[in-house]
Amino acid sequence: MQSDNPTTRDNNSILSPRYLTIRKQSLIICEPLQVEDYVVQPTMDVSPPKWHLAHTTWFFEAFVLLKYFKGFKVYREDFHYLFNSYYISAGERWARADRGNLTRPSVQEVIDYRTYVDAQMVAFLASGEVSEEIKHVIEVGLNHEQQHQELLVYDIKYILGHNPTYPVYQEQKLKDHSEGQKANWLKIGEGIYDIGHDGKGFCFDNELGRHRQFLHAFEISSALVTNAEYLEFVQSGGYKDHFLWLSEGWDWANSEQAEHPMYWEHKDGLWMNYTLGGLVPIDLNAPVSHISFFEADAYAKWRGCRLPTEFEWEVAARQFQPELSEKSNFVEEAHFETIPTGTYDFLGNLWEWTSSAYRPYPFYQAPEGPLGEYNGKFMINQMVLRGGSYATQRHHIRHTYRNFFHPHLRWMCSGIRIARHT
Amino acid sequence: MQSDNPTTRDNNSILSPRYLTIRKQSLIICEPLQVEDYVVQPTMDVSPPKWHLAHTTWFFEAFVLLKYFKGFKVYREDFHYLFNSYYISAGERWARADRGNLTRPSVQEVIDYRTYVDAQMVAFLASGEVSEEIKHVIEVGLNHEQQHQELLVYDIKYILGHNPTYPVYQEQKLKDHSEGQKANWLKIGEGIYDIGHDGKGFCFDNELGRHRQFLHAFEISSALVTNAEYLEFVQSGGYKDHFLWLSEGWDWANSEQAEHPMYWEHKDGLWMNYTLGGLVPIDLNAPVSHISFFEADAYAKWRGCRLPTEFEWEVAARQFQPELSEKSNFVEEAHFETIPTGTYDFLGNLWEWTSSAYRPYPFYQAPEGPLGEYNGKFMINQMVLRGGSYATQRHHIRHTYRNFFHPHLRWMCSGIRIARHT
Amino acid sequence: MQSDNPTTRDNNSILSPRYLTIRKQSLIICEPLQVEDYVVQPTMDVSPPKWHLAHTTWFFEAFVLLKYFKGFKVYREDFHYLFNSYYISAGERWARADRGNLTRPSVQEVIDYRTYVDAQMVAFLASGEVSEEIKHVIEVGLNHEQQHQELLVYDIKYILGHNPTYPVYQEQKLKDHSEGQKANWLKIGEGIYDIGHDGKGFCFDNELGRHRQFLHAFEISSALVTNAEYLEFVQSGGYKDHFLWLSEGWDWANSEQAEHPMYWEHKDGLWMNYTLGGLVPIDLNAPVSHISFFEADAYAKWRGCRLPTEFEWEVAARQFQPELSEKSNFVEEAHFETIPTGTYDFLGNLWEWTSSAYRPYPFYQAPEGPLGEYNGKFMINQMVLRGGSYATQRHHIRHTYRNFFHPHLRWMCSGIRIARHT
Amino acid sequence: MQSDNPTTRDNNSILSPRYLTIRKQSLIICEPLQVEDYVVQPTMDVSPPKWHLAHTTWFFEAFVLLKYFKGFKVYREDFHYLFNSYYISAGERWARADRGNLTRPSVQEVIDYRTYVDAQMVAFLASGEVSEEIKHVIEVGLNHEQQHQELLVYDIKYILGHNPTYPVYQEQKLKDHSEGQKANWLKIGEGIYDIGHDGKGFCFDNELGRHRQFLHAFEISSALVTNAEYLEFVQSGGYKDHFLWLSEGWDWANSEQAEHPMYWEHKDGLWMNYTLGGLVPIDLNAPVSHISFFEADAYAKWRGCRLPTEFEWEVAARQFQPELSEKSNFVEEAHFETIPTGTYDFLGNLWEWTSSAYRPYPFYQAPEGPLGEYNGKFMINQMVLRGGSYATQRHHIRHTYRNFFHPHLRWMCSGIRIARHT
Repeated sequence: MQSDNPTTRDNNSILSPRYLTIRKQSLIICEPLQVEDYVVQPTMDVSPPKWHLAHTTWFFEAFVLLKYFKGFKVYREDFHYLFNSYYISAGERWARADRGNLTRPSVQEVIDYRTYVDAQMVAFLASGEVSEEIKHVIEVGLNHEQQHQELLVYDIKYILGHNPTYPVYQEQKLKDHSEGQKANWLKIGEGIYDIGHDGKGFCFDNELGRHRQFLHAFEISSALVTNAEYLEFVQSGGYKDHFLWLSEGWDWANSEQAEHPMYWEHKDGLWMNYTLGGLVPIDLNAPVSHISFFEADAYAKWRGCRLPTEFEWEVAARQFQPELSEKSNFVEEAHFETIPTGTYDFLGNLWEWTSSAYRPYPFYQAPEGPLGEYNGKFMINQMVLRGGSYATQRHHIRHTYRNFFHPHLRWMCSGIRIARHT
Repeated sequence: MQSDNPTTRDNNSILSPRYLTIRKQSLIICEPLQVEDYVVQPTMDVSPPKWHLAHTTWFFEAFVLLKYFKGFKVYREDFHYLFNSYYISAGERWARADRGNLTRPSVQEVIDYRTYVDAQMVAFLASGEVSEEIKHVIEVGLNHEQQHQELLVYDIKYILGHNPTYPVYQEQKLKDHSEGQKANWLKIGEGIYDIGHDGKGFCFDNELGRHRQFLHAFEISSALVTNAEYLEFVQSGGYKDHFLWLSEGWDWANSEQAEHPMYWEHKDGLWMNYTLGGLVPIDLNAPVSHISFFEADAYAKWRGCRLPTEFEWEVAARQFQPELSEKSNFVEEAHFETIPTGTYDFLGNLWEWTSSAYRPYPFYQAPEGPLGEYNGKFMINQMVLRGGSYATQRHHIRHTYRNFFHPHLRWMCSGIRIARHT
Repeated sequence: MQSDNPTTRDNNSILSPRYLTIRKQSLIICEPLQVEDYVVQPTMDVSPPKWHLAHTTWFFEAFVLLKYFKGFKVYREDFHYLFNSYYISAGERWARADRGNLTRPSVQEVIDYRTYVDAQMVAFLASGEVSEEIKHVIEVGLNHEQQHQELLVYDIKYILGHNPTYPVYQEQKLKDHSEGQKANWLKIGEGIYDIGHDGKGFCFDNELGRHRQFLHAFEISSALVTNAEYLEFVQSGGYKDHFLWLSEGWDWANSEQAEHPMYWEHKDGLWMNYTLGGLVPIDLNAPVSHISFFEADAYAKWRGCRLPTEFEWEVAARQFQPELSEKSNFVEEAHFETIPTGTYDFLGNLWEWTSSAYRPYPFYQAPEGPLGEYNGKFMINQMVLRGGSYATQRHHIRHTYRNFFHPHLRWMCSGIRIARHT
Repeated sequence: MQSDNPTTRDNNSILSPRYLTIRKQSLIICEPLQVEDYVVQPTMDVSPPKWHLAHTTWFFEAFVLLKYFKGFKVYREDFHYLFNSYYISAGERWARADRGNLTRPSVQEVIDYRTYVDAQMVAFLASGEVSEEIKHVIEVGLNHEQQHQELLVYDIKYILGHNPTYPVYQEQKLKDHSEGQKANWLKIGEGIYDIGHDGKGFCFDNELGRHRQFLHAFEISSALVTNAEYLEFVQSGGYKDHFLWLSEGWDWANSEQAEHPMYWEHKDGLWMNYTLGGLVPIDLNAPVSHISFFEADAYAKWRGCRLPTEFEWEVAARQFQPELSEKSNFVEEAHFETIPTGTYDFLGNLWEWTSSAYRPYPFYQAPEGPLGEYNGKFMINQMVLRGGSYATQRHHIRHTYRNFFHPHLRWMCSGIRIARHT
């Protein structure tokens, strides 16, 4: 897909609208918010929406305009300090834990900042000074923005979903899942498989280092685990049987008093679920979501199975769902949480926990310079998820994409697909 | 002043305007804020302004309307849970540490809540059903609101003053302190003195229990310690001389890396001070403010003096400043941080740390019922401050008022007056 | 008693045996221990017995021998660093929290250290070079040792009493408390009273500053609260009624899950109590012990009374128990926990919580030099206890002695005496 | 090796001496200790030596004697509670963090416990009732004991090495490393390799699941990184260059203020190293030890290389060092820290960090029952180390052994071997 590929002959007249479309999408996601919702950071991992809007803008200012656009005037010096996330090489930062204390700049000031930077970017793109190298940085910036768009959805859901008034983000078009596909086992034979991105078109550094992996024959479920299936695990005492849990998972569940997925509540005998459409009864046929790795792993053990490795997942997904289905995704209609259906749902449904720790591929090389801090430095103590979720931007979904989170986290759209050896 | 006295013959037609005037004052204080500023809780002790507005309203709903106004309809059930502060007897509460995570109800919804409750209160006051006992509860509620008005000023200053953009709350009318009065020693002879409130007019429970104290002869400074005097302490190494410090104070200063008062900054060789008017050079003739007890105590030792006890303070203040000076205070002009001048400045300038721990007076009795939780249960590990500050509501300032804070706190308007034995 | 008085004409031939007797007492207290018991620090406030033995020795080495004994050779340089407790002016220290990690020097090495220092002290005392000023420092050192002897008892009890095997420190001579005195109210009239030590004989700096206090008339119980009385409080739900508790006390009790005094256990329907004689059924007629201030305060409220101030206590104790009773105390017989009986038991029974915060007396002056760190710097956030306990060295008990602990602590021998206004 | 193999025809008369030899070895390791050294737990990961001695004994009592030896009488009921480590299925445990608070049972009591259990085990082994299944449990117990023998060495070194008096555990026979082998690159071609234990002879569950891995061609160093090489990294600012570090590693190094390996000290211009022989100058030709994964990873990056995967390591070690060299190991001579030389030193030198996260092999199955808690539940957030160290029991070293630790730990004997792709 051409627009994914900054190394092909994009001319700038194509890049500019693409830039603006993606940038606008961040604001669309925030449209249902009230000003107050933009400001808070209820837990370390959740950043204020306002911060996302500013930080993604800072990326273009710091890594493109300041470096390459002659005569560019910094919007405000203090924003550089405020909206750096973790780029040590880019200088001092406002402490992450204190993002939720910043009431200024206001939401409007942040939007003005976006407007300024976007105008400058358009001018720069029209200037004829944009080398292929710069285009690559811009492409990284756009993909970076799309990653934050997904985080925006997680964070907004967390902020609203942990408010005792359960605000509605967006009315949901209800979907009838009652005819949910029966899961069956998909078979993959043993062999040596190519893994990783082939370098054609955009990808992140951590997908590169295409290489070979030997896989023993295995089977993988054709569908994600449903709420109904997971509820059975909950009700049969799965959270109380330590044999099913990793030791750190057991400690996590006890200290968090975790007894069900995030956003589930057991109220007056009913199982409710906070969704972007508010608090509703659990949809039994929908895939279970907001699951930590610890829970996914325990569930798989309870079923007598295991999670697939990221290599198994990539091979299976490529074989059984070679193309992204035509789901109507966020850009056009912005209806989150309407789970798409398609061939086997490997892509764009929920991020699927794999059993693989997030480590570098054999030939992995971190890029030089600040962008080298992008992925490689997080390659410890995290697990790989694959496939993309309903909150993932469409052109951002691909077989080789490696998402990663710490095993105890579950505010993102994560689900479970089981596997086993034959 | 009659309106201070709920036990005298207030008729309801007097109480109602007084109620509305005080209630309106909370909104006036918040007027300079942007919506974002209402939401955050940058440290445990600082509550979101929005929360103050709602909590003070809840007080009237929970302790007056719900109990005494027949047919009163609760505004929203969940507000009761959200806006209880610490009244255990009033049921479950939203955890204090999580106040800054609540984006909803929005600022507008809170203001609507105020409007509703105020209308109901006016109706109730006109209903003829307001007994003396109820009037007392209302009076407590109004004084409670005024206390929160003062906290609002502290919290707003903290929120803005810890923002790296140093927003201006309100332009300050600059005041020429250059002709600052020279401090001299005021003498008080030994004797038995009456201490505490005589019960005429409103006061808090902790002021009651009028009793006698024997005082040895002492001297007390006629003026508060100035920024110039305190700067000398700073520059002579006062924060590095452990002999001056209480052990817990030394630990506090080290762990906080405290080297000067809160809001001071040493930038490029200049001493700056964040005020409600923004970041400005230190006014050397103004009294030093935002001082912890630990700092006040160390400073006094450095001067070879000590802090006065709360009894000494009360006796001296009554003798040397029997009446509150005619300062133009917040209600009329809302210019904070213009330090009033008057006889000896005991009242309405800065809260003055005393050397007395906050403990009950000999005949202290906590009131029955929920209001019994108001003061008595905090009588441990805190120190008494006296006198009121520029952020204190005028009719709220009196010789017997006992304010109290933990010795490490300094986000409030606190200052130092030294004393010594003769 | 002459030996208590370093300012009178002690000749050195008297001081030397007194020195050795007191020093030996520390070892006597440790005699029942096994080597392992000397090493651990199960909680921050509990120091390893070995540490006490070394630290008290260091005191004499650092403040007497090193300073005044010509030609004195330091025993081991590293001990200076290891066994300083909190004297900032005496240089760097091994962190308090890590005392329990030090397996070396061994117990035997510490005893050798004691032997060396004691021999040097005896030589120094015989040298004729001991001025009155030095005698005073030695006297402080001996009193300091006696304080640590009391702490040794607390810490040993904690170490053994928190071991699930409940080791016996010492068989207890059982005492028949069945004819426990009925408590009655002792009356004290209003008036001005002298408070504090008159400076004749040894006392700590915090007792000095003899001054006058006006007291309103009051009544004080003739006896400490018994286990039977306290058990009634426990069983009637006293720990569950927040109205009885200070706010920080309530939080403390909840976070500690405190539901009864330290060392009580409710096992199979029986109330047991860990004593130095092992785990035994509660002696209902003995005074309740190991009580935090929070518990003492809640209990007094539950009884409709209050705790006495330290001034009231001092006046009452002096009036009703002018002399220390002839209890057989530790030195001679070493039988702890045999609660003495005597007139009113103000002295040498249990430390009695007062309602007074630990603050300086009006004329208090911290001594110059390192000994100035002894008492004054702790005068914040602690409450005064009076009277001495069965673990207190006999010549260490006096009406004016001000002990102090944080209000949540209870590993020391603390009890309750109630008071009220008439 | 026969004695490693409980599934072959061991008769009990062989098992019994093997049992006693291994059990005795634990006491030999502790011989140089003083009683005090047995008791403390200076950091969470370090258990008191006394605890190791008791816990390994408990293993045989709980999992062998209690289950299978008819008429066996439990030694002491409370030991079961005290000395369970983490076997949830084996009942309640004394909290791990509080192991260092237990002064009783004493060292002697623990040794008595060992004597009792050993006598019972010998009787049981002679009883003719020992099935193959039971033999397997015993074999696990013996391997478990050997693992704790290694931990004993780590923990003892930590306890002594963090004592400011630097006690000597054992005089070291100094070794001349000056003729250290030059490291060169060993080449391995691409291909499919068998990985894991073949099930013949004893191994842990986590080594099973023999399976195939495809490896790209790579090179691996013939020698471990030396102190000299690592010192260069330290002195060239390796700890200050964030580009070399994983993000969590950077945070770890900053919060720990790590600037060199554990046990190194920079004193008066000299680099010293605490060894079991005391504090000595760094041996530049010895391999660097006590390195966290974060440090190993940063060092490898600094060299432009990487760490090998555990699969690469296993293939290389098997090829280049098929047999364990004849080092004189602990049992016979007990000289720790005399680094053995042999072909390439893959085995029995230092545990070598690999780049592989500790995750289950494809066909991994946790055993049924309590022993199922042995390895599988730790398969998260830890990294694999291979090869064994000088503290590892000889018959405990094998190519397939998977050791694992969290990436920030370094109190164990860990080193670095670098690798790269060709």
